[in-house]
Amino acid sequence: MEKLYQLLEQEYGEMVEIRRHLHQHPELSFEEVETPKYIARFHEKLGHEVRTGVGGRGVVATLKGGKPGPTVALRADFDALPIQEENDVPYKSKVDGVMHACGHDGHTASLLGLAKVLNQMQEDLPGNVVFIHQHAEELPPGGAIAMIEDGCLDGVDVIFGTHLWATCPLGEIGYRTGPFMAAPDRFDIKIQGYGGHGSQPELTKDSIVIAGQLIGNLQQIVSRKVSPLDTAVVSVCSIEAKNPYNIIADSVSMTGTVRTFTEEVRSFVEKEIDRVTKGTCLVSDADYTYTYTRGYPPTVNHKEETELLARVAGLAPGVESVKEYAPQMGGEDFSYYLQHVKGTFFFTGAEKAGRESSYPHHHPKFDIDERALLIAAQVLGTATIEYMKNHS
Amino acid sequence: MEKLYQLLEQEYGEMVEIRRHLHQHPELSFEEVETPKYIARFHEKLGHEVRTGVGGRGVVATLKGGKPGPTVALRADFDALPIQEENDVPYKSKVDGVMHACGHDGHTASLLGLAKVLNQMQEDLPGNVVFIHQHAEELPPGGAIAMIEDGCLDGVDVIFGTHLWATCPLGEIGYRTGPFMAAPDRFDIKIQGYGGHGSQPELTKDSIVIAGQLIGNLQQIVSRKVSPLDTAVVSVCSIEAKNPYNIIADSVSMTGTVRTFTEEVRSFVEKEIDRVTKGTCLVSDADYTYTYTRGYPPTVNHKEETELLARVAGLAPGVESVKEYAPQMGGEDFSYYLQHVKGTFFFTGAEKAGRESSYPHHHPKFDIDERALLIAAQVLGTATIEYMKNHS
Amino acid sequence: MEKLYQLLEQEYGEMVEIRRHLHQHPELSFEEVETPKYIARFHEKLGHEVRTGVGGRGVVATLKGGKPGPTVALRADFDALPIQEENDVPYKSKVDGVMHACGHDGHTASLLGLAKVLNQMQEDLPGNVVFIHQHAEELPPGGAIAMIEDGCLDGVDVIFGTHLWATCPLGEIGYRTGPFMAAPDRFDIKIQGYGGHGSQPELTKDSIVIAGQLIGNLQQIVSRKVSPLDTAVVSVCSIEAKNPYNIIADSVSMTGTVRTFTEEVRSFVEKEIDRVTKGTCLVSDADYTYTYTRGYPPTVNHKEETELLARVAGLAPGVESVKEYAPQMGGEDFSYYLQHVKGTFFFTGAEKAGRESSYPHHHPKFDIDERALLIAAQVLGTATIEYMKNHS
Amino acid sequence: MEKLYQLLEQEYGEMVEIRRHLHQHPELSFEEVETPKYIARFHEKLGHEVRTGVGGRGVVATLKGGKPGPTVALRADFDALPIQEENDVPYKSKVDGVMHACGHDGHTASLLGLAKVLNQMQEDLPGNVVFIHQHAEELPPGGAIAMIEDGCLDGVDVIFGTHLWATCPLGEIGYRTGPFMAAPDRFDIKIQGYGGHGSQPELTKDSIVIAGQLIGNLQQIVSRKVSPLDTAVVSVCSIEAKNPYNIIADSVSMTGTVRTFTEEVRSFVEKEIDRVTKGTCLVSDADYTYTYTRGYPPTVNHKEETELLARVAGLAPGVESVKEYAPQMGGEDFSYYLQHVKGTFFFTGAEKAGRESSYPHHHPKFDIDERALLIAAQVLGTATIEYMKNHS
Repeated sequence: MEKLYQLLEQEYGEMVEIRRHLHQHPELSFEEVETPKYIARFHEKLGHEVRTGVGGRGVVATLKGGKPGPTVALRADFDALPIQEENDVPYKSKVDGVMHACGHDGHTASLLGLAKVLNQMQEDLPGNVVFIHQHAEELPPGGAIAMIEDGCLDGVDVIFGTHLWATCPLGEIGYRTGPFMAAPDRFDIKIQGYGGHGSQPELTKDSIVIAGQLIGNLQQIVSRKVSPLDTAVVSVCSIEAKNPYNIIADSVSMTGTVRTFTEEVRSFVEKEIDRVTKGTCLVSDADYTYTYTRGYPPTVNHKEETELLARVAGLAPGVESVKEYAPQMGGEDFSYYLQHVKGTFFFTGAEKAGRESSYPHHHPKFDIDERALLIAAQVLGTATIEYMKNHS
Repeated sequence: MEKLYQLLEQEYGEMVEIRRHLHQHPELSFEEVETPKYIARFHEKLGHEVRTGVGGRGVVATLKGGKPGPTVALRADFDALPIQEENDVPYKSKVDGVMHACGHDGHTASLLGLAKVLNQMQEDLPGNVVFIHQHAEELPPGGAIAMIEDGCLDGVDVIFGTHLWATCPLGEIGYRTGPFMAAPDRFDIKIQGYGGHGSQPELTKDSIVIAGQLIGNLQQIVSRKVSPLDTAVVSVCSIEAKNPYNIIADSVSMTGTVRTFTEEVRSFVEKEIDRVTKGTCLVSDADYTYTYTRGYPPTVNHKEETELLARVAGLAPGVESVKEYAPQMGGEDFSYYLQHVKGTFFFTGAEKAGRESSYPHHHPKFDIDERALLIAAQVLGTATIEYMKNHS
Repeated sequence: MEKLYQLLEQEYGEMVEIRRHLHQHPELSFEEVETPKYIARFHEKLGHEVRTGVGGRGVVATLKGGKPGPTVALRADFDALPIQEENDVPYKSKVDGVMHACGHDGHTASLLGLAKVLNQMQEDLPGNVVFIHQHAEELPPGGAIAMIEDGCLDGVDVIFGTHLWATCPLGEIGYRTGPFMAAPDRFDIKIQGYGGHGSQPELTKDSIVIAGQLIGNLQQIVSRKVSPLDTAVVSVCSIEAKNPYNIIADSVSMTGTVRTFTEEVRSFVEKEIDRVTKGTCLVSDADYTYTYTRGYPPTVNHKEETELLARVAGLAPGVESVKEYAPQMGGEDFSYYLQHVKGTFFFTGAEKAGRESSYPHHHPKFDIDERALLIAAQVLGTATIEYMKNHS
Repeated sequence: MEKLYQLLEQEYGEMVEIRRHLHQHPELSFEEVETPKYIARFHEKLGHEVRTGVGGRGVVATLKGGKPGPTVALRADFDALPIQEENDVPYKSKVDGVMHACGHDGHTASLLGLAKVLNQMQEDLPGNVVFIHQHAEELPPGGAIAMIEDGCLDGVDVIFGTHLWATCPLGEIGYRTGPFMAAPDRFDIKIQGYGGHGSQPELTKDSIVIAGQLIGNLQQIVSRKVSPLDTAVVSVCSIEAKNPYNIIADSVSMTGTVRTFTEEVRSFVEKEIDRVTKGTCLVSDADYTYTYTRGYPPTVNHKEETELLARVAGLAPGVESVKEYAPQMGGEDFSYYLQHVKGTFFFTGAEKAGRESSYPHHHPKFDIDERALLIAAQVLGTATIEYMKNHS
């Protein structure tokens, strides 16, 4: 393992270079063109077997180890976001309105660095490594599902992935067995009442009054209907019924999000919103439309692989603490890989020191401490090699 | 008319005696025995044609006028209430827990006094007078409906009635064309949820939460669904779900009242409570039972007769002002008479001077200024004679 | 009076011409230029004393009667609305996006026709007539208040005004003593919570949840706090908090209207909205801003003048029925005149026969039966002359 | 360990006898007289050092092991409930209205049996055992707190305790590190409005409407204000405002329970209920009183001791499965012991086979499979000996 860490240390400079290059040339989900080319060339130069256009725009590279053993997949996503960067840094995005504001540039740079190092250790590797470079993580349905259908997991025994996390301290690794990332769903409700003059409510079905009752009634899904020991969030985030001050609203549109960690609770909440809306509309004899759009499923880490990760992460020189994290309310399409093979997804602390504030992901001033690239590579590499040792 | 007033003046002492006798011997609705006997004897002594047991316990006496003319009915009710009197007066109720706390003793005394006087004027009367002494006004279905079915209005052309009103000034007469007294209805709702332990709401259907939503939703019947130009009240007055502090309520019982002035609004509210309850229960997949019990219908005064009353009431020596009153939210079974014949129901001010406070009707300290007996008799007598003059 | 009706009959053709001319050349409130010039010229030709620019853009013309007597003011408003006419008629509006969609063209034409006729009867008139041609009735603060300050009511004893009403039958006159038109007020509430991510409600103050509670709580002002025998409407008509589906709203803006008929209820509701909002925000430790903007005051007709109108309106040959109307929930700045002098405001039926539907005021297809111009002139003229007779 | 299991097997018959004796002679919390005497005598016969009246009515017995080692405390509670038993069994409660409906009779019998067996193994025991027989677990403030103050934990290194659980399968042991049993608190709210007649809401402050709003508003504490990753329950379980159908309620009384697992969330909810009530009352200018009564604190198991228990429980012959349980929403005053010394509290499955239904704790038909007495003794004994081995 010492060799791994030594080689990665040497590779760190290039990782930073790659990351900054990608940061300056971000590409939106499902519109990635240059990024996958760049990744493919990198692996090709290393002599890896490379498949492009996987599931659309994904890249899969394979490194065959010198010794027999299991096949370990490592995944990094590479898409950016429709955000205008507000950082004043030399490597600022050169594309107007597009920014790597979630750290996927770092994921890719870290994994490419690790690939180069593992390539150098190829002869001694007791197993194979599949590098899954995924497009379109930010935009459901995401790239993972199509890459899987296109065979990216064929022959894979286990998968590891990480997210650089700008609000967790550098040197910290966060793991969790079972549900780790939530299912981030969306709902849209339109209350269809019957408009009219504000002075004659009796001739209308006042859709704003109905919406008010609905917002209140929706609270009881979490407060009464989901077990206090399960986790669910139902948030109405947007409401709109723009009218003159004296005209009762004909309809109101509402949009919101649901977060859950199990399919059971998720489906329950989906149905329950419908029932609550139906009853609330019946009170005023109004109609409604309701759409529930599923985001990614919950990311459910496997027990044994998570325990392996938790056990060995501390070996990495850059890691100072390894912590069990609470579940995270955000979503990830890494979930799909874990529905097909064993594995685990973890957080790598990447908080940037010396700033007045830790800007959260998706913020125009989001940035990471680049040393996290090295740490992520160390931990992924350690997990890969340890897994191979245990399973050869 | 001068003769009328003069004779009534002489009769006033006896009116007070009668009232005090009745006040000391109150009888509950549908349990009146001695009171109708007393009334019947009084009319018999005058030589009136008397029918007892009318519609159960009512008494109807007829005075044939010496000249041809219309038949005018005058109605007084004679039942008391299940209230323990708290007045310290010589004529205090002698029956424990029963009290003339609404002034019906006064109605009867006033009408008997007037009967005696009209009897003395019999030769000159251009028409007949039917004295309707009604039992059971306080308790729906009331006595009026049965007395009408038993013929008390046969041959009657017009009816007048008054209520002595303890919170209106002595000397004031209050009239109103159209809806005057409300329909005082009752509703009972039982929310049937599903109980359970307070720590496991997800296994229950929390009937208290449903009841809370229902109380809120019921407000919109008045605020949104009845025209602001119509009048309606929906009040939930009682709620009960008595449970240990940690057991979620299986069911909640609620009771309340509805007040309206037209059949249209009344029926609408009755149906709307059902819809609101249905929708509210649907929100939580709960059941309910709903009963709507109609009290008396609205008391709707006829235009021409009310105008006559308003015009001539001021002739009575005891009347100082004649006012158009707002509709009253209480109910009266005088309504039924007005559904069969023309007529009007009015208020006779009876506020007792020199008290620290005007105790409202049905209060244990309710009392009236007895001079109102005379004034009521004057106004009823005036209306009777004026009507006869106009219709002979 | 026969002469009045005969002359008006002859004048009817010109009334229609005037109305059609004005209809084709509508001008917005506070932007009237040609209309007041047109009106002034008409009166000048008749030799009336004319004052222009009264209170801004109003025109006041005075006709001195040949005999001594009181001064009667007659008011007609002349502004149009920012509506695109959708009628296919020869006299369609020639101004894009501006339309006489409330009948003020008719008010003016009718009054000018009447002015010409009264002018012809000048010698016999026992009093003077002040013709108040008012600008800007549609847009608070309206023209009335400024015209009054500018002296338009100086020396006036009584004022009459009418509104042609497109949804009441031709030939019908609607009157009402006391409150006739409502006070149409506006309120604006901004709930200031604290936004955040939809998955972390505990870090926010969810302004949409607060708004939902507020909408519900506002219902109780009408259902519980205003007497059922008073009239009030509180309608939230607009609500807006436009956000991404997963971002909890930082603030919500709401706008609505209040309608009342007395200053007491109006002030109570104004204060009560504040209290309800304050308490509702306290529940979630949120802030708010609240603005209450008063529209016109209630239009309160004087008793004696309304009874005069009700009594004599039927004399007019075009009038088929004279009815007591319920209060109207709309507002009128005629209110201000009635705060200074005695008078009454009434409706003149103007429903256009043979259309598939009676389009309401402010509708792009609004139109009137022009025979109502004649009827309005007849009734105003009758009231004027009757009043003079009674007060000379 | 084999010896332990063998001796316990032999002791099983007596355990059942003891349990049935106690079951027939239940005593209420804080009223225990015969039970502690019975327990004390049992230990005295074994030659244990016995202290009675500990913290009121508790009994503490000490067995000194033959070898040096740590002191392990084992706790069993012995109070019964005010419930009328409905089981038809030979050992049915002989005390009217009092019943061991929570299995504390079994706890005591099991611990006494284990005491006898450990006494027989005394020479080889590398440590001491303190048997804590606690009174009054069912009734806050409970017996634990007083027994601790009275020194029952003096010299104790670790404590173990179990609850026989009638709805978990026989043979199953349930453990959990960290918060295991909730803090079961109680709240009482009285809304003080202002009563009046149901037809005149404007003269009242309708406390039922306020209560309805409050019930709704309280939902948002869990749905919006506590993190979805924390656990909290707020249940309004009782509501009462008993009134005639037509009298608006002067006040409403509500009672409910709060369940939380950390002091932070607990204190937050306590304060938040107050704020929500305050704001809700402000909406209607009403008053309130609010009392929050803390039950036991959360039962928080220590990590190392729980892991020990989880590891060794399976050694016991009667144990078929050892499972990590979800937190339990009920409360336990075992919490207090764990605030002073390390230890763990676990569940021992005791479901009675062959019944139509598993009656829950506190049910009149509650009963246990008595084989659970043996299993509980096996697991407690195993944990005791294993702990001693590890810490000698």
